[in-house]
Amino acid sequence: MRITLIGSGNVATHLGAALKNAGHYIAQVYSPNLQHAALLAYHIKAEAIDNLQQIDPAVDVFIISVKDDAIESIVQQLAPHNKLVLHTSGSTDIQLLLKYTAQAGVFYPLQTFSRNKEINFREVPLCIEGATAAIIKQIKELAQTISNNIYDVDSSQRRILHLAAVFACNFPNYLYNIAQNLLTQHQLDFEMLKPLITETADKVQHQLPSAVQTGPAVRNDELTMNKHLEMLHNEPLLQQIYQLLSQGIIKMDKGSNADK
Amino acid sequence: MRITLIGSGNVATHLGAALKNAGHYIAQVYSPNLQHAALLAYHIKAEAIDNLQQIDPAVDVFIISVKDDAIESIVQQLAPHNKLVLHTSGSTDIQLLLKYTAQAGVFYPLQTFSRNKEINFREVPLCIEGATAAIIKQIKELAQTISNNIYDVDSSQRRILHLAAVFACNFPNYLYNIAQNLLTQHQLDFEMLKPLITETADKVQHQLPSAVQTGPAVRNDELTMNKHLEMLHNEPLLQQIYQLLSQGIIKMDKGSNADK
Repeated sequence: MRITLIGSGNVATHLGAALKNAGHYIAQVYSPNLQHAALLAYHIKAEAIDNLQQIDPAVDVFIISVKDDAIESIVQQLAPHNKLVLHTSGSTDIQLLLKYTAQAGVFYPLQTFSRNKEINFREVPLCIEGATAAIIKQIKELAQTISNNIYDVDSSQRRILHLAAVFACNFPNYLYNIAQNLLTQHQLDFEMLKPLITETADKVQHQLPSAVQTGPAVRNDELTMNKHLEMLHNEPLLQQIYQLLSQGIIKMDKGSNADK
Repeated sequence: MRITLIGSGNVATHLGAALKNAGHYIAQVYSPNLQHAALLAYHIKAEAIDNLQQIDPAVDVFIISVKDDAIESIVQQLAPHNKLVLHTSGSTDIQLLLKYTAQAGVFYPLQTFSRNKEINFREVPLCIEGATAAIIKQIKELAQTISNNIYDVDSSQRRILHLAAVFACNFPNYLYNIAQNLLTQHQLDFEMLKPLITETADKVQHQLPSAVQTGPAVRNDELTMNKHLEMLHNEPLLQQIYQLLSQGIIKMDKGSNADK
């Protein structure tokens, strides 16, 4: 397919590379910052533009990968070209596109992308939605060229997935950051914690999180929790986080085979 | 070495298996619950006992793997045998053992263990401490038979590691549980989130967590955060967790190359 990417952030970058590798032709990359557009465009042999007036309409699909609050003004400007328009946002309803064009769909990769980290796109779950059965079919064909994990997900389900992803990805990463800071402050090597982080993520690939919960809170070990809170006496935010998450663990439904 | 295990929980079980596989002789397994002792003892060809009076003193080392608040009474009862006594606790000072015996040490595996999940013990970081240089040497030799990652860690550093492990393991697992519940409540398959969980843990193996933080909070995307809080209106605890962790992310030191 002939594709133009609107946006040059992490999602656009990884998606663009995957599409290019799958043999698609990437016509243009748009960003309001021409340098950003050029950086991505260079890698995927596309033209960089920083003005939507310069859009080449001779493509099959526009993929919009920008901040949520920038999507509407972009679809408004693309709609007159009468081409398929997809966005990649977890929390934006397809209705926003449908206000401006009937050729609307969603192409949401449920993954975290970072600039300097390669990813195997074939394993990325792609959540797709389309305005019509014909559009869904078209999007699915495109999706299958880059991923093995395609899911039909409507806008209300996608909002839930996006919220769940914040809990499963963004928040754990922040907790890794807290742990790393604690170690660094005490001249300990973050390396020591890495096998634990890997194993924690690995365990829930095969068992429910509730069945493999460990630590002082699930044992209701108040002695240890109080010691920990005392160690954090100079860090009121971390104390609050410790207390709140421990409360949650104490209250959680542990199922029958909880490890402690 | 001839080893007796005091305790039959997850740590004792995985440690016992690793020691047995490395060719050590496990003499006895003690648990106040004889069935629990017998289950582990069966797997590692040891004798199960439920009374410390039945301890066979003809061993080289006692390894105490029980709840923190049970350690003291056990070391008190083992001290008269005059053998090396190690505990495996992250948050218990070596001083507690030294109150009763000079032959004291610590053998703390920095990992999360679950009953039904195999683990490659050679990759488990083992944090060791001993009362004397000779004891440290002896513990290190034992440690090297089962792990490639041996660290000399004193009691105050070990407390920090244990606290950091709660943030890097126990709390993320609880957040996975929240995410899984959100999906299940909306008839979505937890399978969809698994690649995200794996990738999130994988990213920090090579980069600092602060450099790979993603999500609405690090972008200070209030529109999305408010939508998420609204979706959680029936879950006050989850709302509080969402707000507190988002606040933390907004305040975190992102370094120079933050992904958003």
